[in-house]
Formats: sequence, C-alpha cells, structure tokens
Amino acid sequence: MPRFTNLVKGLPATVPFVGPEAQERVRNRRFRARVGANESVFGPSPKALMAMQKAAAGAWMYGDPENHDLRNALADRHGVDVENVVVGEGIDGLLGYLVRMLVEPGDRVVTSLGAYPTFNFHVSGFGGALVTVPYRDDHEDIQELVAKAGETGAKLVYLANPDNPMGTFHPADIVAAALERIPDGCLLVLDEAYIDCAPEPGPAINTGDSRVVRMRTFSKVHGMAGARVGYAIGHAELIGAFDKIRNHFGMCRISQAGALASLGDPDHLSDVVARIDRARRRIAAIANENGLSAIPSAANFVAVDCGADGAFARRVLESLIKRDVFVRMPLVAPQDRCIRVSAGTNADLDLFAEVLPHALSDARNPQSTVNRPV
Amino acid sequence: MPRFTNLVKGLPATVPFVGPEAQERVRNRRFRARVGANESVFGPSPKALMAMQKAAAGAWMYGDPENHDLRNALADRHGVDVENVVVGEGIDGLLGYLVRMLVEPGDRVVTSLGAYPTFNFHVSGFGGALVTVPYRDDHEDIQELVAKAGETGAKLVYLANPDNPMGTFHPADIVAAALERIPDGCLLVLDEAYIDCAPEPGPAINTGDSRVVRMRTFSKVHGMAGARVGYAIGHAELIGAFDKIRNHFGMCRISQAGALASLGDPDHLSDVVARIDRARRRIAAIANENGLSAIPSAANFVAVDCGADGAFARRVLESLIKRDVFVRMPLVAPQDRCIRVSAGTNADLDLFAEVLPHALSDARNPQSTVNRPV
Repeated sequence: MPRFTNLVKGLPATVPFVGPEAQERVRNRRFRARVGANESVFGPSPKALMAMQKAAAGAWMYGDPENHDLRNALADRHGVDVENVVVGEGIDGLLGYLVRMLVEPGDRVVTSLGAYPTFNFHVSGFGGALVTVPYRDDHEDIQELVAKAGETGAKLVYLANPDNPMGTFHPADIVAAALERIPDGCLLVLDEAYIDCAPEPGPAINTGDSRVVRMRTFSKVHGMAGARVGYAIGHAELIGAFDKIRNHFGMCRISQAGALASLGDPDHLSDVVARIDRARRRIAAIANENGLSAIPSAANFVAVDCGADGAFARRVLESLIKRDVFVRMPLVAPQDRCIRVSAGTNADLDLFAEVLPHALSDARNPQSTVNRPV
Repeated sequence: MPRFTNLVKGLPATVPFVGPEAQERVRNRRFRARVGANESVFGPSPKALMAMQKAAAGAWMYGDPENHDLRNALADRHGVDVENVVVGEGIDGLLGYLVRMLVEPGDRVVTSLGAYPTFNFHVSGFGGALVTVPYRDDHEDIQELVAKAGETGAKLVYLANPDNPMGTFHPADIVAAALERIPDGCLLVLDEAYIDCAPEPGPAINTGDSRVVRMRTFSKVHGMAGARVGYAIGHAELIGAFDKIRNHFGMCRISQAGALASLGDPDHLSDVVARIDRARRRIAAIANENGLSAIPSAANFVAVDCGADGAFARRVLESLIKRDVFVRMPLVAPQDRCIRVSAGTNADLDLFAEVLPHALSDARNPQSTVNRPV
C-alpha cells in the first residue's frame, strides 16, 4: 500500500455527503420535488444559460487561469480592487484552500455546533481542532463565537450569515460590531452564500481589514450550483496567497462564462429573490396549516420546526423522501427538531403541502411505516 | 495578518501558470492560432456538446457527488470495478489530492527534470522534496526514475507516458517491466493524459497492484480541457481514500454530462486521433522545410528542435507569439532547444508554416527584433 500521511490515515473513510441522485438510485425512483439542497429551482438566468450553451463549443480550451473577466466584474460589483477577489470552484473549494493556507495539525478553529459540515470536513482534513459553540435561539451565537476565538487562540472562526441550516440572520450592524472584536491573528470566515436572500446586505466590505474574508457564490440566487463558481473577497495579501496553492486551471470555462453573464442580469436575480420570498412564506403557511412553526428565514430555505425531537423530525423527513420530496434536516440537537425545506416552485410546494400531513401522520405512528435508510 | 502555516509562508508568491488569455491581454490582440496548451482544437464530440448544452439548463442542481454514471461508464470502458475509479477536477485536481494524501514535509518525490510543472507545484505545496532525473535522449528515463525512487525511499514517482513536453513514448512492455520494479511503499503516478494519441495503449491495468495509479483525462482527445474532468484508476483502497479529502461536490454538472456523452462517441475520438496524426506529420514537415527537426511524438503536440540553445528557441517562440501564434516551450535544458506546437487545424498550421521562417529569421537576427516579454 502507498504510505498515506498519518493525518489521512486517521480520517474517517465514510463521509456525510449523500446527494439526491444517490437516494434516487436506492429508491429506484426520481424525486418529484428537489427541495433539499438549497439549490435554486428557479434556474440560472436566461443570459447565463445562453452564455454557457455558447461557451460549451469552446470547452476544448482551458479556462483563463486568472479568471480575469469574472474577477474584474466582481470587483466592480463590490467596489473593490481585482486584487481583493479570488474565484474558485465553489465556496467549498475556496474553504478547502483557505483552511490549507492557515491550519496545521492541532490549530484551533471555531464554528457553531451543527453549522456547515463541509467547512468542518476541511478543518479535520488538515488536522485542525474544531471548537464548537452552541446555537442560541436558533441563531449562530456571534458574541460567543468571537469570545471563543479569543479564548482558544483560534486561527479561524466561521460564521455563516444568513445561517445554514437554520436560515437565521444577524443584521449588518451586529456583524460589523463583532468584526471589531475579532482577535488579531484570527480570521473570520464570513460565509455569505445566502446574503442575496437576506433582508439587508452584510456589513460594508473593508478590504483593508485582514481579519475577515467574505465568501460568496453563484450557487444560490444565481441558480448555478452545478457550475461550481464561488469567490472570496478580502485583504489583497490574503487573497494573493490563494495563488500559492490553488488549482490555477481548475475553473470550468463554461461556468466562467455563465457567471459573468449572470452578473449582467440583475433583473433575473431580483425576480428570483422575490420568488424565494414567496416560497418561504408559502412553506411557513404550509407548516402552520399542519400545526407546525417555521423559523423566520433570510435564506432560500426554511427550517420547519416539527415540534418534537430529532427522532420525530427524522421520521417526518424519511416519510417525505418516501413520498418523493427530497428534503434535508439539521444534524445536531436541538436544531434537529426541524426539517429544512428549500424554496421550491409552485409545483414543488403543492406536492409538499399534499404530502406533509401524511408524513406527520407516519411520524406519529411509526409502527405503521417501514423505516428505511435515506 | 492571518497566521499562514509555515509551509504556505515559504511558498513562492508567483506561479508559472500564464494562460494564452493573459498574453492576449498584454498584446491587446487575439492569437490567430492557439496551439500552445495541447488543447484539442478539433473540439468536443457533437454528442458531448449537445449533452453539455442540454445540461446547462440544469446547472441549478449540484452535480452528483459520487459521479455515479460517469464512473460506471469508465469502469465498463476499462474493465475495472467502479471502486477502482475516482473522477476529479482534471488530472491537476486529482494530482493535488493524491499528493496531499501521501506527502508530508520532507518526503521524497521523484520526477523528471523539466516534466509536468503542475505536479511539482503540488509536491512543493505540500512540502515534499523533489528529486529529479534528467531526460535521456528526450525520453523520461524510466529505469533511472525507478532506481531513484528506490535510492531515496520516495513515496511517489511520476511518469508521464506519452511524455509532456517532449511527446516521447515508452512502449507498454517497457512500462510494465518498470512497474515490476517499483519499490514497495512507493506509488507510481502514471500520467496517461495523452495515451489515446500513442501508437499503442499503455500496459494492462491491474487494479490489484497498489503501486501504480493511472491518470486519464477528457482534456486531450475528448476536447474538453475547459470542462475539467479527469479520472484515476487504481487499487480500491487507494481510490477510496480520495473520498476522505476530495471536494465531494466539486464537479461541474455540465462537465459530468459532457464526459459521459463523449464516452459514447468513439467515432469522434477516432477521427480526432487521425487528425492529430495528420497534424503531427504536417508540423514535422514544416519543421523540415525550415531546416529543423521534429521529435517523434506520441502526443497531440510536437516538440520542434530549433537546432540551437534555449535562448535561440525562446527567440523563435517570442517571434511566433508576436506573429499571433500561441506556442510554448520546455523550461529546462537541453529540452529547451525546442518549441512545443500542439496539433492544429489546417488553418492553424498554414499560419504556423507562414510565420515560422520569419520567426527563425528574427531569432537569427535578434538585434533586428524588439524583445518583448511573453
């Protein structure tokens, strides 16, 4: 056998990333509503779609390793210099690079208990020691995250705003105040994947502050999750360091073209944001009709509180899946009393409305249903 | 500033990866022939193109993290089990994962002096110590690579067959014999990016042998470099370990669809291979007409020996670029006496034939040309 590093030897062989396609293969049946992965069912911009279809013929060429046009457009959009923007293979890819740049075995990294698992995957993958802070009232506990970063001498602290999986949100002034208190030598990873769905933008971007990096994506309101385009905005020295390690020719050329075109279609984004808002309200209404409550959401999904414990919510989820509705749920108590439903089309939510009463009935009468792995 | 790891602090800030688009921006003019990056100017399969255009509308969905359909098709194609195949973001992406899995600071890694720089980039990026073996008669010196791996206790030894940048090839029986002599605990990375252009296939694939991993790609004869799809074939335990660290949702959904469709169009591949062969012969003929020789190539490019030293070849290259022909050249002596010309369309090679005499003239009379950075 090849001689794996001790770090890699110690990593778990199984991973929690099960896609809906894998579930469909097990079920041997397609989902009728795909509202589990916080994708944008409203699709990409027609301009992005056209750009991608056109770019496909040029797929024989490597993409521009500098992502020049896209980075410049993003810099313009955010009022920063191009040196403050790095484009990568989704936020997931950028988080991997970032953790690699900062985390050595044993280094402390602070996040919320039950927050984005892919960040944790990268931290563990580079040997970092995760320090977790419980949610407070279904919100990431921003004060405690910052305090814990100071106490533990953490190199990184992760905050998603809006949060995933709960969809809760901290206003810009709260985040800005927290930024002031990030300890020197600690970097705040401010994951703003869902910020376009929030009631207000995040705090002003200050690229002079080397204690924060902002993560953004084309996977959510831009409707291009499958294209794998994310970007980070930050201090030029931090952003420049990505060049030391990133996969320079890693970006799909078709995706580069699509992202650039999508930036040029703000009307589509406004329309999607409006549709997301309508879908959120409808999900909440469906929850209420079934005697459940919905956590107010600033993201493109809603955490629906099933009103009992994690085992109950899991039974609801399993029954929904059995009934062809793909949803997911938080992994950690007490948030795991919820199921997480992404903003769907009208047809998606019609189906959700139709099957939720049955799923709740199944969950309340577990002996009557076949428990099946999901 | 964030506290970078010591390893990352020590990495160079500048990288050698300059794309043709960057040169076009500096020149403020498009190339008329793009024959420098060993892309396939013959483009993707019409079936792949149609599949990508169709998949673009579904770009709102993440790609299947298991790459199930593509991996199964590849397993069928190569007569191996699906557990022996991992799909990743190009061979570049897979090389990064592989090095991360095996290389700790100070670990020895053997490669040829002047071979694929992205592999070296990853090795240095994880702190590995590169041990290089000179080319022998413009071939990677396979015996010496294996011997050096034994001497140094290397964890990895890299061999590209066909080679890049020289295009030379070792027959399957030579590679198979070398495989027998790989020391236990050393992994041979057999990069077969160009194998479809070679006069014979590589040695039989034996997934029971944990001392070799085969790297393949859709970037060359499949004409999908910009789509970023590579794969590795190897022992199930090695292949399974990629799941511990890879970016599970890292694949572009459009690219997955394109690669799958391309596998279903062997006629296109045969046609491309024939076109590559014609282009190689034409490049050699053009070289000969200009008093130069061409290194016999088993890849989709030809190293043209400019008949003098590296400085001379660089002047030829710079003049070609000035005349709108994008080419590259080997970086290390004595291979840097060559320029490397990718298989082009008839129009590409017409232009190359037209400008090469002028470029040689420029190179022979350097005082008469303006030396410009490339």
